[in-house]
Amino acid sequence: MMHRLITILLFLTTSLFSYAQSDEVVIRKIYNEALTNGRSYDVLAYLSNQIGGRLAGSPQAAAAVEYTRQVMLDFGFDTVFLQPVMVPRWVRGEVEKGRIVNSKKIGSVKVNICALGNSIGTGIGGISAQIIEVQNFEELVSLGESEVKGKIVFYNRPLDPTLINTFRAYGGAVNQRGGGPVQAAKLGAVGVVVRSMTLSKDDVPHTGATHYQDGVPEIPAVAISTNDADLLSSLLKDDPGLSFYFETHCKMMPDVLSYNVVGEITGSKNPDEYIVVGGHLDSWDNGDGAHDDGAGCVQAIEVLRIFKALGMTPVHSIRAVMFMNEENGLRGGTRYAELAEKNNEKHIAGIESDRGGFTPRGFTIDAEGETLDKIMSWKSLFTPYNADDFLKGGGGADIGPLRSQGSVLIGLYPDSQRYFDYHHSAIDTFDKVNKRELEMGAAAMAALVYLIDHYGL
Amino acid sequence: MMHRLITILLFLTTSLFSYAQSDEVVIRKIYNEALTNGRSYDVLAYLSNQIGGRLAGSPQAAAAVEYTRQVMLDFGFDTVFLQPVMVPRWVRGEVEKGRIVNSKKIGSVKVNICALGNSIGTGIGGISAQIIEVQNFEELVSLGESEVKGKIVFYNRPLDPTLINTFRAYGGAVNQRGGGPVQAAKLGAVGVVVRSMTLSKDDVPHTGATHYQDGVPEIPAVAISTNDADLLSSLLKDDPGLSFYFETHCKMMPDVLSYNVVGEITGSKNPDEYIVVGGHLDSWDNGDGAHDDGAGCVQAIEVLRIFKALGMTPVHSIRAVMFMNEENGLRGGTRYAELAEKNNEKHIAGIESDRGGFTPRGFTIDAEGETLDKIMSWKSLFTPYNADDFLKGGGGADIGPLRSQGSVLIGLYPDSQRYFDYHHSAIDTFDKVNKRELEMGAAAMAALVYLIDHYGL
Repeated sequence: MMHRLITILLFLTTSLFSYAQSDEVVIRKIYNEALTNGRSYDVLAYLSNQIGGRLAGSPQAAAAVEYTRQVMLDFGFDTVFLQPVMVPRWVRGEVEKGRIVNSKKIGSVKVNICALGNSIGTGIGGISAQIIEVQNFEELVSLGESEVKGKIVFYNRPLDPTLINTFRAYGGAVNQRGGGPVQAAKLGAVGVVVRSMTLSKDDVPHTGATHYQDGVPEIPAVAISTNDADLLSSLLKDDPGLSFYFETHCKMMPDVLSYNVVGEITGSKNPDEYIVVGGHLDSWDNGDGAHDDGAGCVQAIEVLRIFKALGMTPVHSIRAVMFMNEENGLRGGTRYAELAEKNNEKHIAGIESDRGGFTPRGFTIDAEGETLDKIMSWKSLFTPYNADDFLKGGGGADIGPLRSQGSVLIGLYPDSQRYFDYHHSAIDTFDKVNKRELEMGAAAMAALVYLIDHYGL
Repeated sequence: MMHRLITILLFLTTSLFSYAQSDEVVIRKIYNEALTNGRSYDVLAYLSNQIGGRLAGSPQAAAAVEYTRQVMLDFGFDTVFLQPVMVPRWVRGEVEKGRIVNSKKIGSVKVNICALGNSIGTGIGGISAQIIEVQNFEELVSLGESEVKGKIVFYNRPLDPTLINTFRAYGGAVNQRGGGPVQAAKLGAVGVVVRSMTLSKDDVPHTGATHYQDGVPEIPAVAISTNDADLLSSLLKDDPGLSFYFETHCKMMPDVLSYNVVGEITGSKNPDEYIVVGGHLDSWDNGDGAHDDGAGCVQAIEVLRIFKALGMTPVHSIRAVMFMNEENGLRGGTRYAELAEKNNEKHIAGIESDRGGFTPRGFTIDAEGETLDKIMSWKSLFTPYNADDFLKGGGGADIGPLRSQGSVLIGLYPDSQRYFDYHHSAIDTFDKVNKRELEMGAAAMAALVYLIDHYGL
């Protein structure tokens, strides 16, 4: 009898949780739970240190699927399931060699390279050709086929250090990496070398996706570090006929089966309406994908764990989704939206964390009018947590395809100063993540999910 | 003739600089200079990696005095000089050993310890005694002399992880370190062990100053890591009679001569009125003092370098001051204010950076009424740089003594999540500092100095 009474009391307490307390109190409890009993850091340690880099289609990606599935089962989420999706399988190969050849000043010099994702390889023996530096496509085009044909094009426009938001700096330079090979190949170039997409000056090359285009020859492309880019540029000033050699064995394999991993707490009143929080589970292969985007994945899981730990039963269903293949295909994000459409799952909002596990400054919000006003009205609730920069802006690549069903898309907006130091490189490792910064990002997302769930959108 | 014309034009350009341009434009130029040509990171590299930990009175502190003097001379500041000041000289000694003795569960276990600054040593052979855990002074006092006499007191109250500003968490725990030995000795304790003042769970002990009191016996005091504190606490639950052993050879030596290092750009109109930016040059000996407070020193130097580089001639004199002996005496800050008083140097404002070289969120301002309103009116100028958290709060320990002459005291307010992970420990090293975060702190201070200089206070 006593037991039953306790059960009833517990049930009442639980179901009344989100209504009986002020938003301030609920959000304070969310932060306290994240900062006191947070699990995101431990989960990220395993994902980074035990599994490591996990490019789509790799054994590590499969391990990450199984691991995060088990973690969410262990946390007792109501449902945990996999969404099958075919993904591209690009492999780097064992060999990556780069060399400045026979420069007047310092002779031949070894250069660390890493192939750009999706690039073809040079094959055994590599390629060696004169290298010419350009800052942008306009400069390349002005050189014309006569100057470019048979050569390697070196894209060397740096990220603009004066931009305070480093994502803007990245956005202003990354077309060299994504579109550089196609533009160079159109003029007959045989290869591409790209300055790494980072603001830091060091010896670490940063990879990232490049894209080919039907009807344009596919040429191999690699990144070099910013220090090596500066060196190469300075040598070219005295030695405009300089050659460069590189060898890569990377290649695209047939598509393979992989999965989005989905954990769910089912809504008490509107179970067929969803709020999704997510990150992408795949990462580049050269580092451990700790910030990009292990952080986003473990934060998404943590959001649901916090709801469970505090006994918060949401009105709508909330899901943590580990999207697969953001880095070189976006197949997981695309598939998730297709299935949502097919299964009549109305997604009222998506929140993605894919800008690193740094101290959250707020959110970027892709919404208009009254919806935007409503979200903006919650801003002051985040002031005590220094996370009240609510800006208009994009949500995230993986949740992007949900736009077609009118979901409000929101991106966690962390401090951006350190992100590109590590991004897509061998130094995107667990030691670069601070426990509290990671936890505060999860707490901010959980607080926003609570508000969206409670007040609707 | 042409040369003279150019000189005149240059002179006009220079002297008109701060009047001919909007505040927005000037501040944008300051940030651009810091983020494009910044030198603070290089100077910090030398201070951290070549000189390292530099406790007041040590050879390293002397090296740091000479190095920063030379840096400021090389940067061409109008005046660079030293202010002699006698400082305490505490030395750690070679030996630091700690051990949990003969516990029931795991026997004897070695524990990393570090002596608290200013502590006496145990002498050769160390001390071994029963150890009792308390959370605070009230609990200690309630135990009374009968329970405390002859024992080692273990202060184990953690920093509160739910406080978003970690300085508040630190402030809520640090009395154990500063006052713990006196409180324990009053009840007859023979030694003190303190849980490290950090929110992170790791194996690194954190030092910091402790204080003795006339008439109370001086007993030796050490810090242990948070992991070891948790271990010790858990062992004590099963084994309340547990003993602890530690040996330290630290001691206080006679005072020695040291210096504040001052660089100055002389004001064009009010050269006898000063705006001072500063940090403290001394650091604890166990790490490299990169964040605490090498960062503040190099940022202060950078503020003046930016003024020089942009040809900005201030109306008032501006000074970069490397204060000596903040960590265990505050002699430098005290002496600086005494000399300012004696030499009729009116200090309209002091800005200190002593909270680490992390992304600046804004400033804490120790002012009232119209003065505070005036500073608050500049807040929006810092919004484009995400540094517009202008809060009422303290300036900094070293500039504190300037309050007696009515100076407005301001502290740079960086993001605080990571600071205490490194603070006063062996891992306060250069690799923990991000170049852009450091530079943005210098830029924020330079912008504020410009506004104070231009509009007065």
